[in-house]
Amino acid sequence: MPSDPHAGPSKPAALPLPPMSWNAWGDPALAKPLSEDIKALLEQLLGVTPQEGAAPTADEVLLRPSALTAQDLAALAAIVGPDAVSAEDADRLPRAGGKSTPDLLRRRSREEQDAPDAVVLPGTEEEIAAVLAYCSERRIAVVPFGGGTSVVGGLDPVRAGFDAVLSLDLRRFDALSDLDEVSGEATLGAGLTGPQAEQLLAARGFELGHYPQSFRFATIGGFAATRSSGQDSAGHGRFDDMVRGLRVVTPAGVLDLGRGPASAAGPDLRQLFVGSEGTLGVITSVRLRVHPVPAVKIHEAWSFPDFATGAAALRAVEQQGAGPTVLRLSDETETGVNLAMTAKIGGSQITSGCLAVTVYEGTGEQTAARHRLTRQTLLDAGGTPLGEEPARAWEHGRFDAPYLRDALLDCGALCETLETAANWSDLARLKDAVTAALQGALQAGGTTSLVMCHISHVYPTGASLYFTVLGAQQGDPIAQWQAAKSAAGDAIMANGGTITHHHAVGTDHRPWMPQEIGELGAAVLRAVKATVDPAGILNPGKLIP
Amino acid sequence: MPSDPHAGPSKPAALPLPPMSWNAWGDPALAKPLSEDIKALLEQLLGVTPQEGAAPTADEVLLRPSALTAQDLAALAAIVGPDAVSAEDADRLPRAGGKSTPDLLRRRSREEQDAPDAVVLPGTEEEIAAVLAYCSERRIAVVPFGGGTSVVGGLDPVRAGFDAVLSLDLRRFDALSDLDEVSGEATLGAGLTGPQAEQLLAARGFELGHYPQSFRFATIGGFAATRSSGQDSAGHGRFDDMVRGLRVVTPAGVLDLGRGPASAAGPDLRQLFVGSEGTLGVITSVRLRVHPVPAVKIHEAWSFPDFATGAAALRAVEQQGAGPTVLRLSDETETGVNLAMTAKIGGSQITSGCLAVTVYEGTGEQTAARHRLTRQTLLDAGGTPLGEEPARAWEHGRFDAPYLRDALLDCGALCETLETAANWSDLARLKDAVTAALQGALQAGGTTSLVMCHISHVYPTGASLYFTVLGAQQGDPIAQWQAAKSAAGDAIMANGGTITHHHAVGTDHRPWMPQEIGELGAAVLRAVKATVDPAGILNPGKLIP
Repeated sequence: MPSDPHAGPSKPAALPLPPMSWNAWGDPALAKPLSEDIKALLEQLLGVTPQEGAAPTADEVLLRPSALTAQDLAALAAIVGPDAVSAEDADRLPRAGGKSTPDLLRRRSREEQDAPDAVVLPGTEEEIAAVLAYCSERRIAVVPFGGGTSVVGGLDPVRAGFDAVLSLDLRRFDALSDLDEVSGEATLGAGLTGPQAEQLLAARGFELGHYPQSFRFATIGGFAATRSSGQDSAGHGRFDDMVRGLRVVTPAGVLDLGRGPASAAGPDLRQLFVGSEGTLGVITSVRLRVHPVPAVKIHEAWSFPDFATGAAALRAVEQQGAGPTVLRLSDETETGVNLAMTAKIGGSQITSGCLAVTVYEGTGEQTAARHRLTRQTLLDAGGTPLGEEPARAWEHGRFDAPYLRDALLDCGALCETLETAANWSDLARLKDAVTAALQGALQAGGTTSLVMCHISHVYPTGASLYFTVLGAQQGDPIAQWQAAKSAAGDAIMANGGTITHHHAVGTDHRPWMPQEIGELGAAVLRAVKATVDPAGILNPGKLIP
Repeated sequence: MPSDPHAGPSKPAALPLPPMSWNAWGDPALAKPLSEDIKALLEQLLGVTPQEGAAPTADEVLLRPSALTAQDLAALAAIVGPDAVSAEDADRLPRAGGKSTPDLLRRRSREEQDAPDAVVLPGTEEEIAAVLAYCSERRIAVVPFGGGTSVVGGLDPVRAGFDAVLSLDLRRFDALSDLDEVSGEATLGAGLTGPQAEQLLAARGFELGHYPQSFRFATIGGFAATRSSGQDSAGHGRFDDMVRGLRVVTPAGVLDLGRGPASAAGPDLRQLFVGSEGTLGVITSVRLRVHPVPAVKIHEAWSFPDFATGAAALRAVEQQGAGPTVLRLSDETETGVNLAMTAKIGGSQITSGCLAVTVYEGTGEQTAARHRLTRQTLLDAGGTPLGEEPARAWEHGRFDAPYLRDALLDCGALCETLETAANWSDLARLKDAVTAALQGALQAGGTTSLVMCHISHVYPTGASLYFTVLGAQQGDPIAQWQAAKSAAGDAIMANGGTITHHHAVGTDHRPWMPQEIGELGAAVLRAVKATVDPAGILNPGKLIP
């Protein structure tokens, strides 16, 4: 079970803690333990049984000692102030990595665990610039840290030849520094979490509308650095669509990018730093498109006889344009498993087929018009309306799935997700290939698995696919998952997919980057990095092959 | 008057000619000579009188001799074939530059005119790669050439320390090589003009829907290389929005960018090559979002009492979402002048105020719904509907304004356009500042001018401003315009605008690039260029400061 994040090792934390538990997703108060029925079902179907050996508490974790000297800490304290730097285990452990299943399994180890050698909380861009200058000089790697929600190894303390690693926590960049109500544009600090940003905007009647599953904990800077995509992407676009400008502090200086609502002044350099995952600079603030808090919200769930019919319906809606704010479709397996797990979604209405969820937000008449048109398209495409309730139930639990993963890991299950996107015409083939790759790789190790899938982001030309894999932990579960992940990545590249639709690259997807962007594309990224980060200290070992 | 583009200098062209006249916009058959009434009005209002000295015919142009040796030409012929290379004046002159007013004035000179030293028409990517390798070795600059419609000096034969300049004409890259009808995605050759691309797509029931004023002559590769924006951008987006992928041949290798409909796999390298204006590589094909040919088209014109009221109305429509396919607004001066020039738009309905044009395209019910919602918003915002006719008249003449410029130049008028974009909250201040800068700079030289403006591209956070300037040529009209342009550029940068919304950078906007993207942004572009074009041969002197 996740322990209290505020407990920590024997010596208490000197700095404010990240928003998530050190060894589990999110807030332990929201943990979702499995019922005995579900545990019995998992054992019966997949052979899931509790694993031996209790996970360590934070106190019991054996942390690699800090490699930074007292002199280094004094120098950093001289830059950010003595209260904004710490090499205590209680500050280092919660920033030791992200929240992928391998990350969480690593936190359960009683072997020595790696972590950044110290943490700094700079308060100004000048302090960040001075920290980067010091670290460039002293050959200390720097990992920018937001909400700590990476699921691709983006926060791993990779040393890559450097003497030490510093975690640079952006939480003090927490202001709504400008809101242009006429233009619908807000400048938000990189360290604001999703809820913090929305609260600041809501007080002025505005909304950003970016709701990825990590919403409660992830930050504005992290959303930009990882090309995040929220569950309302059908209506409000991906995070990169919302970015009008951003400020980035690099070892070579500060970039302030983005003029006007659109420009033809050469390459769009914003799109080089959006998605840069801390490897090209530290994003300190993001200028974002915002909209008035919607006046109206309509929920409607649908059932489709099978995934192909449902996907064709989503395609018809998206290619027509002006559809829902949220549009998603679970496959047959996910629809069935969700029913079994929650034993309520949709009541007796969906016992088979595929569940789709639509939500419409906006001004009254405009929202009603979009609902009416989309409804007709979905009916024409073979959908059966299920009313509001299953869509509201989905919305109610939209951020909770990762808690279920913690409970599953506790019970000895292997559970992880991965995602991709492809053109509509490639989608069925890609889904089959990835499913077969995951199941085949796990079966080769003797593990029977269940693979579920949904579409959660739609575009005129294609859609995302989000896979959830469930099986029993066997032997070394990290190696077990890595074999499956590797097979899935190869299947994605061989079948027209992108290696990641919204999880970003980090360490985990880096091996596929030469296929994704080509060797010359990788050389371009290295050239940019050499210009803005000549010493190469920024998040080494991530993203750039 | 523009001469027949197929006449040319005494020795005939060896290669197919570009789609436009060598010394005027477009097709001389579509020239729009001014009526005597208009000429009298121009003289009375602005002192416009015919300038002395007849412009040279193509035969009479004194062209700088080709700097390429017979050995160079033989080497190029060995790569592309003897029929695909020429150093004849008749091939060089039509590729001597673009179609800005200074370009057209330069073509009227009897002094020596500069031009590329030869032209090649490669037929394959391998041939392009071999040409780039040869030119890198021999220190020959290469200017990629599409439709020749640049209005920012993007095609100038800048030598910048190189021994010669080669024009690399992409016209043989003219295939629709793939159409994925399910996903709505087409792969189009870089050398296809707008009408050629639309014809190929229309034969399969699809449309790209990109209609900039240069549509009839500009090419797919040029649209991508310059971040073009079409008149239907409210409905179909800018060209960069439509780009799903592209292939680029560079001296360092070929890039094939873009996987899936969206990706979080790091920086979006497509957005580094879209807008690269031939400085980073030669775009050979572009994968583009396309849509079925619209079933329905609705036209409606509106009148607003003043520009501020009209702009607020456009903002309301765009921030509501799901509005028209075309949405534009002329200011009071432009509305009045258009009336005077055409003596018919809108009949007696608009004698004052500001004309707005809306067009809606799509499927029947969806288009009707968008029209109804937008109509209500425009009514609520103080608009008066004028019916179909003025909107149809605008559409009928949408590509013809540049012909009017030729006629004005012929009569001794100075006429040129420039454009920018800014947030809605900055728009009024920016419009006033640019107008004052243009009129002030011209008046300082003794020229009274008329400055007209329209909004033709709208975004949730802001809009474009497109200015047309009209005065009398006085003294050296190129210097006269450059003073006005320089003042306008400074006013744009000082008032929150981008130096260009859709005309691109070329040579003309390059002085403002350090302000637009910062010195560090410029360093990033130089680093990318050094990686893909180590010899620096690609379109030197353009874009990158």
